[in-house]
Formats: sequence, C-alpha cells, structure tokens
Amino acid sequence: MLPIVKGLLAGERRALARAISVIDNDYLESHEIIREIFSKTGKARTVGFTGSGGAGKSSLIGRLIPECQALGYKVAVLAVDPTSPITGGAILGDRVRMQGNLDDKKVFMRSMASRGAVGGVSKSLRNAIRILDAAGYDLVLVESVGAGQLEVEISRVVNITVVLFTPHTGDNVQAVKAGLTEIGDMYVVNKSDIEGSTALYNTIVDLIGNTERRPAVLKTSAKTGRGVREVAQNIDKLLKEKSINYKERERRMLEDELKDMVLNIVEKKVVSMLAGDKKYSEFIDKLLKKEIDPYVAAEQLASGLINK
Amino acid sequence: MLPIVKGLLAGERRALARAISVIDNDYLESHEIIREIFSKTGKARTVGFTGSGGAGKSSLIGRLIPECQALGYKVAVLAVDPTSPITGGAILGDRVRMQGNLDDKKVFMRSMASRGAVGGVSKSLRNAIRILDAAGYDLVLVESVGAGQLEVEISRVVNITVVLFTPHTGDNVQAVKAGLTEIGDMYVVNKSDIEGSTALYNTIVDLIGNTERRPAVLKTSAKTGRGVREVAQNIDKLLKEKSINYKERERRMLEDELKDMVLNIVEKKVVSMLAGDKKYSEFIDKLLKKEIDPYVAAEQLASGLINK
Repeated sequence: MLPIVKGLLAGERRALARAISVIDNDYLESHEIIREIFSKTGKARTVGFTGSGGAGKSSLIGRLIPECQALGYKVAVLAVDPTSPITGGAILGDRVRMQGNLDDKKVFMRSMASRGAVGGVSKSLRNAIRILDAAGYDLVLVESVGAGQLEVEISRVVNITVVLFTPHTGDNVQAVKAGLTEIGDMYVVNKSDIEGSTALYNTIVDLIGNTERRPAVLKTSAKTGRGVREVAQNIDKLLKEKSINYKERERRMLEDELKDMVLNIVEKKVVSMLAGDKKYSEFIDKLLKKEIDPYVAAEQLASGLINK
Repeated sequence: MLPIVKGLLAGERRALARAISVIDNDYLESHEIIREIFSKTGKARTVGFTGSGGAGKSSLIGRLIPECQALGYKVAVLAVDPTSPITGGAILGDRVRMQGNLDDKKVFMRSMASRGAVGGVSKSLRNAIRILDAAGYDLVLVESVGAGQLEVEISRVVNITVVLFTPHTGDNVQAVKAGLTEIGDMYVVNKSDIEGSTALYNTIVDLIGNTERRPAVLKTSAKTGRGVREVAQNIDKLLKEKSINYKERERRMLEDELKDMVLNIVEKKVVSMLAGDKKYSEFIDKLLKKEIDPYVAAEQLASGLINK
C-alpha cells in the first residue's frame, strides 16, 4: 500500500490534501491511489451547489457545515474552480473557513483547479470524492465556481444539486438561460434579506412548479443564518429518500464514468496518431486549396483509425 | 447543385436562414451543403463578442452594424445561444434588430442553439460562417451568450475576439476567473456612463498591460453610442493587420477542425460500439462489486477499439 493511501485511510489531513492534488493534476500516481482505495468507497453522499458568481455559495456552505455536522455527518468541502492560469488554483476553501465558528479539525476543505477538457472536471471530482469517502467523510459538499457547462457536468457527478439564486440584476432571466431550473433537486433564494427576493422566489416557484419532481424552493440569508437549518434538513431528507435509488444511480454514474474514460483514452491515442499521420497534413493542404471538403477528409482519416 | 445552395449563393435570405438551420441541427444535408459551397469560401472575416450576461453585447453589436457597414463591410450577425430546452432556441437577433436605425436588408441576423457537446458549437459555427461567406457576407459578428468553456471555444473559431466588461458587481474578479483576459484581441468597457467604469477600465488595463500583445482597451456606451465608432475602426485595423497571418491561422484553424471532426466520428463509433459490447456491462457489474477499478476497466475496453 502506498504511504499516501495509508495516511489518508488513517485520516491524516496532509495525506488527504496531497492525494487530492495528485488527482487534480492527473499525475500518474492517481491510478494507483484509486486502485488501492476503490474497494473502500461507496458510503459518501454528495451535494453540489451551483449558481452565478456572487450568489453566496461559499457563505451558505460555511453556514451549512455545522448544521450538517449536527445531523451526524462528517463533512468535507470541495470547491471546483477551473480558474485562469494567471491566478493559479483558487483558494475558495479559505473563504469558507474565514466565516469562523467552525471547528477546523472536523471539516476538510479543498479547492480543485481541474483545468483542461470539460470531461476533466468530472474525472477529478469523482476521484477526489472517492478519496474523501475512503478517508471516512460521508458528506461531500461541492461548490462549483464556474458556470454553464461546468455546472451541468458537476450535477452529473453528485447525488443532489442545490441551485442558488440571489436577487441580483438579471438573475431571473439568467436562471432560465443557463438551464439551471432543470438540474436542481432543491432551490435556494439566498440573500433573502435584500430587496427583490420575494419576486425572485415567486418566479422560481412558477418556473419549476410545473415540473413533475417539484423540488423544494427555500429562502436563506447566509448573512444572518436564517433558513440555513431548513436547507440542511432538506438535504438530509433528500439523501435519505434518494437512498432507494442509489444502486441504480450508481450504475448510471459508473457507466458515464467508464464511457468518459474510454473516450479519453481513445481521444489521446487518436490525437497522437494524427500527429504522426502524413495523410493528416496532406489533407490540410488539400483543404487549404479547396480540393477536398472537411467532411470527406474527416471520414477518410477516421476510417483508418478504428477497429471494425 | 442543391436548390438551397443555389438560393444562398444568389443571396436569398430564406435559403440562407434555412441552410444555417440545417447546419445548426446537424441534419444530413449539412455535408452536401458544405461540400458544394466549400470552394467558394475564404473571404469572410469573423469577430467574436464575449462577456458575462448583461454586459450589453447585443446592444453594442446593434450599434456596430452601421459603423462597420460605413467602413465597407457586408455584415452578418450570429448569436450562439446553447440555451435551455425549455425556452427553445433564443432569438437574440431580434433584440439586436429592435435597436432600430438598421436597414434590415443590408444585415443578416441569426441565432444558433448548437446544443450538445462542447465541440458541437465550433462545428456549427464554422459551417454557418462558411454559408454566410459563400453568400457574400464578408464580416460576421458572433455573439456568445454562454460563458466559460463556450467563450473559449468561440474564440478558437473567429479571427478576432472582443471581450466586453461592464461595471457590475464582481466583474473585476470574474474577469480573471473566467480567463477572459487571455482570449481577447480587444477589450471594451461597456456602459461607461455608469459608476465604477473608470475603476474597471483601470483594472483591465493593469491586468492585460503586462502581456506581450497589449490589446487595446476601449470604452463605450451602447446606450448613447459613444465610443462605438472607435471599436469599429479598431476591428477594421486588426482585421487588416492580421491579414498577414491569415494563411498560417487558417491552417491552424483547419487542423483544429479536422481533428475535432475525426474525434467526433471516432467518439460516435466508440459510443455505439460500447453500447453493443458485452464486456462493457460486465465491467460495470465488476465495478459495482469493486472487483476491478475504473482505470483498469477503461484501459481494457479501449485497447480493443483502436487500430494499432
């Protein structure tokens, strides 16, 4: 057994942090770590938090941690922030931590950068969750910092998705645009102490009221703490309700993951095969001279690569 | 020659609109259309507009159209909006059109939904640009409605990327986060008549001032029209400067496109092969029982699919 795996199974925070870094950077050791812990996973439940920047995700999560602990969960937080290379890996965990009133020893927090392909986030996230799972954390709160594609991707990996709204300019319209009203298992209107929150609340209730699932819409103020306990209780309820379907859901999640991984391997091989393929640069020359069209070129190149 | 191609080459707007729909929906006819027009393309130049929702992209584009026409361009606008299935394909073009003072006959506007994979947007967009190109439009303004991944993707397809900022809450921080300061050939602080715009302008100049390219940072007010002419002139200048590198850039863009298309074909084949592969569901069973780990499963599945 790798020392790092030994460490994280013993709950050593440094080993845990390093293991997640290894995963996040997709180092070769990732494979070995996952192989060694895989049989020890399957207990952790996961909640994703999405919503536009400034909706107060970090603050709400900061408030939720003690509430979830009070319900008996051992809580970890992952902030997924595929941020610019300029600023480097973000440190959102620190923002949560700075909320105070947290017993640092009981909660584990980590930011992930997970740059690269869209599929890259799912892969890092799934494996980071496995590491926390193996280390004994049974509730992982996942904060998404990006938007759009990223949020949909995260919602595929977690058990429950909580979508946050806030009465800022345009949030009503943005909500529909981003398709967020389709991925939520629960909706929260945060900053409910500021103007416009009731109108926003009503809009959201209207929007999702017609769907079959009718997820809960709650109001919170991460500033005063109002409504946060209800969110924690509702998460707990959903996780327990959903447990009936976990086997089926786990199967689908594994199918997704395996497909992503196979495609990833195939993609890498295809890219490296193309790079060494004389036909590829010949086709580009022909395309530049308009002697061939892109569809024909692509079909001919692809047919040589795949087994049939 | 397909009637639709005949129509669009003759500049018939209905044929043009239908051809772009065919492309956007990835109907089989797409291939034939592109094959028939491909040799007639290569003249159009493209400008992408990105920036968070509410930055005023549509309004700025609305103002830019007559300015670019005055510089001699035949202008078309494509709005890429991979919006929620609930609302259906968006109609941003209409928002631009409603700005008034536009001669509808001289400008062509169209929204594209381009749902599906990230790569799907590039593909539709490249081909929609080709259609406009073949129809005689020599300047295509592309508005991106999404964020993050999508904007980076669009920037790969267009000749010039204009990044819009607006003095709204958090835009300073968001700018860095989204990596937007890396993709711009030009930056615009829009809504320069509202408070905070000077501070934002300074932040952006600071941020990009250290880069080698030192792209221009301009101020506009799409509301009053102030600064819009300077944006048009700067676009014109950049397009003319860049023309030296067009051959090289076109080669790289074609390389990207061909790679994407090959990967797309390979991906489709792999997904359909997996669906019929007994080993795939056997591996899922083994994963559920923790008898195997995902890395080993993926490697074994992939090795059977690709030619060596």
